[in-house]
Amino acid sequence: MEFSAQQIADMLGGTVDGNPDVTVSNLSKIEEGKAGTLSFLANLQYQKFIYETEASIVIVGNDFKAEKPIAASLVRVKEPYMAFAKLLEAYNSLQHQKTGIHPRSIVSEKAHLGEDVYIAAGVVIGDGVTVGKNTKIYANTVIGDNCNIGNNCLIFSGVNIYANSQIGNEVSLHSGVIIGADGFGFAPKGSGYDKVAQIGNVVIEDGVEIGANTTIDRATLGSTIIRRGVKLDNLIQIAHNVEIGENTVIASQSGVAGSSKIGKNCMIGGQVGISGHLKIGNDVKIAAQSGIGKDVEDNSIVQGSPAFKVSDYQKSYVYFRKLPSIIRDLEKKLKN
Amino acid sequence: MEFSAQQIADMLGGTVDGNPDVTVSNLSKIEEGKAGTLSFLANLQYQKFIYETEASIVIVGNDFKAEKPIAASLVRVKEPYMAFAKLLEAYNSLQHQKTGIHPRSIVSEKAHLGEDVYIAAGVVIGDGVTVGKNTKIYANTVIGDNCNIGNNCLIFSGVNIYANSQIGNEVSLHSGVIIGADGFGFAPKGSGYDKVAQIGNVVIEDGVEIGANTTIDRATLGSTIIRRGVKLDNLIQIAHNVEIGENTVIASQSGVAGSSKIGKNCMIGGQVGISGHLKIGNDVKIAAQSGIGKDVEDNSIVQGSPAFKVSDYQKSYVYFRKLPSIIRDLEKKLKN
Amino acid sequence: MEFSAQQIADMLGGTVDGNPDVTVSNLSKIEEGKAGTLSFLANLQYQKFIYETEASIVIVGNDFKAEKPIAASLVRVKEPYMAFAKLLEAYNSLQHQKTGIHPRSIVSEKAHLGEDVYIAAGVVIGDGVTVGKNTKIYANTVIGDNCNIGNNCLIFSGVNIYANSQIGNEVSLHSGVIIGADGFGFAPKGSGYDKVAQIGNVVIEDGVEIGANTTIDRATLGSTIIRRGVKLDNLIQIAHNVEIGENTVIASQSGVAGSSKIGKNCMIGGQVGISGHLKIGNDVKIAAQSGIGKDVEDNSIVQGSPAFKVSDYQKSYVYFRKLPSIIRDLEKKLKN
Repeated sequence: MEFSAQQIADMLGGTVDGNPDVTVSNLSKIEEGKAGTLSFLANLQYQKFIYETEASIVIVGNDFKAEKPIAASLVRVKEPYMAFAKLLEAYNSLQHQKTGIHPRSIVSEKAHLGEDVYIAAGVVIGDGVTVGKNTKIYANTVIGDNCNIGNNCLIFSGVNIYANSQIGNEVSLHSGVIIGADGFGFAPKGSGYDKVAQIGNVVIEDGVEIGANTTIDRATLGSTIIRRGVKLDNLIQIAHNVEIGENTVIASQSGVAGSSKIGKNCMIGGQVGISGHLKIGNDVKIAAQSGIGKDVEDNSIVQGSPAFKVSDYQKSYVYFRKLPSIIRDLEKKLKN
Repeated sequence: MEFSAQQIADMLGGTVDGNPDVTVSNLSKIEEGKAGTLSFLANLQYQKFIYETEASIVIVGNDFKAEKPIAASLVRVKEPYMAFAKLLEAYNSLQHQKTGIHPRSIVSEKAHLGEDVYIAAGVVIGDGVTVGKNTKIYANTVIGDNCNIGNNCLIFSGVNIYANSQIGNEVSLHSGVIIGADGFGFAPKGSGYDKVAQIGNVVIEDGVEIGANTTIDRATLGSTIIRRGVKLDNLIQIAHNVEIGENTVIASQSGVAGSSKIGKNCMIGGQVGISGHLKIGNDVKIAAQSGIGKDVEDNSIVQGSPAFKVSDYQKSYVYFRKLPSIIRDLEKKLKN
Repeated sequence: MEFSAQQIADMLGGTVDGNPDVTVSNLSKIEEGKAGTLSFLANLQYQKFIYETEASIVIVGNDFKAEKPIAASLVRVKEPYMAFAKLLEAYNSLQHQKTGIHPRSIVSEKAHLGEDVYIAAGVVIGDGVTVGKNTKIYANTVIGDNCNIGNNCLIFSGVNIYANSQIGNEVSLHSGVIIGADGFGFAPKGSGYDKVAQIGNVVIEDGVEIGANTTIDRATLGSTIIRRGVKLDNLIQIAHNVEIGENTVIASQSGVAGSSKIGKNCMIGGQVGISGHLKIGNDVKIAAQSGIGKDVEDNSIVQGSPAFKVSDYQKSYVYFRKLPSIIRDLEKKLKN
C-alpha cells in the first residue's frame, strides 16, 4: 500500500510543502530514511538529518524553518511526534486484518467464537472455550478447555494457555507465553516431596500486554491475578497466587514468588526477584537486579539485594567501590 | 460432577454435621468460599472465616467446637488439611482422564504407544519413540526421534523434546519446556568460533517435575542427568553435562552452567547462578540471587555473589548498609 | 550405521593397533565407554581410563605408549582431539539428513522454498516467505509472513518467527526461540500507558547460533541486529533496537535493554543485565551476574552491579566479606 504526501497531509490535518504526489509505503527513522519511506522530525537535536535523509516524506512542525534545501516533501502538522505515532499505529494495525478460521486449525465443536475472529493454522482450541469478537489467534497456539478470551485480543503464535484461564479484552500475549501452568508447590514427604495439587486458575484483566516466553502460574486455589493495564516484558516469572496491581510495569527477566501482592502503578526493573508472601505497595519503584525480601511501603524507591532505599544504596555502593583505599587510609592514620 | 456432604464424609472416613445432602462441584479457600464449593479449616488463625464463609461444605477437625452458628455443612475428620489435600489431588487428576490418539496428531508408524495414552491434536511423535502406559501428551508438543517416555507422565502443550532423550515414569513437563537442545560449546577459530558438536542426550529419572519454559541442554557426549524426584521451577537453565542429585529443588530463573554436579536434597533459591565444572554437595541451601563460583561442601548454607556462609553474608550486608555512617564516625573519632 | 576400526583409521588418515574389524555405532567419553562405542585419549590425565574402558575403539596419538594391556582397538593419529572432533561433527550432521516437505506442514502458496529443504510436520510458513537451500525446519515451528531465511540453517521445533524477520545463512535457532516479538514500548497516558507501535524487524546475520527460549524483540522502527558469528545461549533477552557486534558470545539468562549497542568479540557471562541506550565497546568481558548502567570502553573487564573494573571489584569484595571484623578491629584500636 502506498500513500502520497497529499493523502498523508489530509489524514493528519496538515499541509504539504514540496511535491504532493511523492508516495511512501513504509516508515523510518530520519537518520535511516530511504526512498519510499516517511519519517518525522520532532526533536531539534535530529534537525541536521533532515538535510541528508533519503526519506521521501518528512513530518515536521508548523513552525519548522529550513536552513538549507531539503529533498523530501514536508508534511507540516501541529505535533509531529503525535502525528507520526498515529501513523505507526495505523501501519501496525494493518498487519492484523486477517479474519476467518483456517481449515487446518483444530477448534472444538463445544467452543464459541465471536465475530471477526482470526484463528490461524495449527491453533488448538478446547471444549467450552469462548473467544470474543475481533480477537486474533496466530499459528500453533493452544487454548485449553473452558478458557474465556475477551474481545480485540492479539494472541501470537505458539502461546500455551492452560484450562480454565480467564483473559479480558484488548489483551496481547506474545509468542511463547505460558498462562496457567502448575504453581511450584511441594510438601516434604519421607526423603522427597509430594506435589500439592494446583487447581486454581489465572485471571488477566483488560488491556494487559505480556511479553514473549513469560510464564504465569495458576493458583493453588483461587486465582493468580494480573490487573487492568499491567505491562509485563519478556521472560518474566509470575508464581501461583500472585496479584499484580493496575498499570504496574515490569521489565524483562524479573520474577515474583508465590502469593506476593504488588500494588498499582509500580515500576519494576529487569532481573528483579521478589520473594513469596510479600506486600509491595502502590507507586513503588524497584531498581534492576534488586532482591526484595520483605514488604515495601507505598511510594518507596529501592535498590540492592536485599533492597533498601535507593539513595542509601547508592551511597553505600560508593564506599564499597573504595573500600580497600578507605580502610588502608584509616589504618595508616591510626598508626600515626 | 457434584458430590454431597455425605459422599465426601464417606470418602474421607468422616462424619457430617449439618445437611448431608448439600452438594459441591469445586474447592475454595475458606476466605473466598462460594456456594457450591468445599473448603477446610486447619489453621486456627482462619477460624473467624468459618462463620462468614459462603462455602457449602467445610472440612474441620473432629475436635472443632463452633462458637457461633455456621451456615455450611461440616465434615469432621481427624486431619482436615490432609483430607483436603486428598480431595485436591482427586480433583486435579479428574482433569487428566482423556485417552486416545487425536486424529490430527502426527505419530510416526515406527513409534510405540502404551495402553491408555492420550495424544492430543497437533502432537508430533518421531520415529522409534516409545511412550509408556497412561502417559498424557497435550496439544502441539513435539517428541523427537528415538526418545523414550515412561509411564504415567504428564507432558503439557507446546513442549519440545529433542531426539534421543530418556524420560522416566511419573514425570511432569510443563508447557514450553525444552529438553535436549544443543549445549553451548564453541572453540575459538580465527576471529570467530567453531561449534563443538553436541551428540549426547538428556536423561530424566522418575518423579521429576519441570516448570514452564525451563531448558535442559543435552550433553556434548554422555548425558545431562536429572535424578529421581528433582523439582525444577519455571525458566531455569540447565546446561550440558550437568547432573542434579535426587530430590533437589530449584526455584525459578536459576541457572547451572556446563558440567557442574549438584548433590541430593539441595534447596536452591530463585535467580541463582552456578558456574561451570563445580561440585555442589548434598543438603546444600543457596539463597536467592546468589552466585556460586567454587565448590560447595555438604550441608552448607550460602548467600552472595560470589556466595559465602549465609550468616557471614548477612552480617557483612548490615555493615554495607551503614557504611557511610560507620566510616564517617571512624574518621571523626580519628580527628579527635 | 556401523564403522570398523579400519574404516575409521582410513577416514582419519591413521593406523590400527589391534583388531581392525571391531565395529562401533556411537561415540563416548573414555571414562564412560561401552561396547560398540568409540572414544579418544588426548589429555594424559585421563590415561588411566584407557586400561579400564569398555569402549571398542580408542583414538590415541601416534606417540602413545601403553603401560598395560588394552582391550580396545587403537586408532593412532597425529592429533587425537582434532580427529575425534571431526567424527563428532560427522556424527552430528548425520542427524540432519532429512529433506522434503511433510504433507502435514502448512506452507503458503506464496512462499518460495529452496532445494533440499526439510519442512517437518506442523510447520506453518506464511505468505511471501523465502527459505534458502538445504535449510531444515523442524516440527511445529511458525514463520510469519515475508520472512527471509538463508541457506543451510537449522531451525528446531517450536520456534516462532514474527513477520518480516531477516535470517542469514548457516544460522541455528533452537526450540522455543522467539524472533521479532514487539519491543516493550509504552508512553504514559492518563493513569495508564499507551502502546508505542513496534513496526521494525529483526535482522540476524550469517553463522549466528541462538539457544533455547531466547527472545529477540523487533525494533520500534528500523532493525534489531545480531551480527555475523554471534552466539547466544538459552533464555536470553535482547530488546528492541539492540545491536550485537560480530562474534560476541553471551551466556544464559543475560538481558540487554532497548537500543544498547554491544561491540565485537565481547564475552558476556550468565545473568548479566545491560541497561538501555548504552554503548559497550569491542573485546569487553563482563562477569556473570553483573549489572551495566553506563557505557563500557573497549577491552574493559568488569564485574558488579553496577559493574566496575574486575580486579577492583574483587578487592572490594574481599573487604566486604571481612567488614564486621575489620570495623571491629578499627574501633578497638581507636579505643586504645
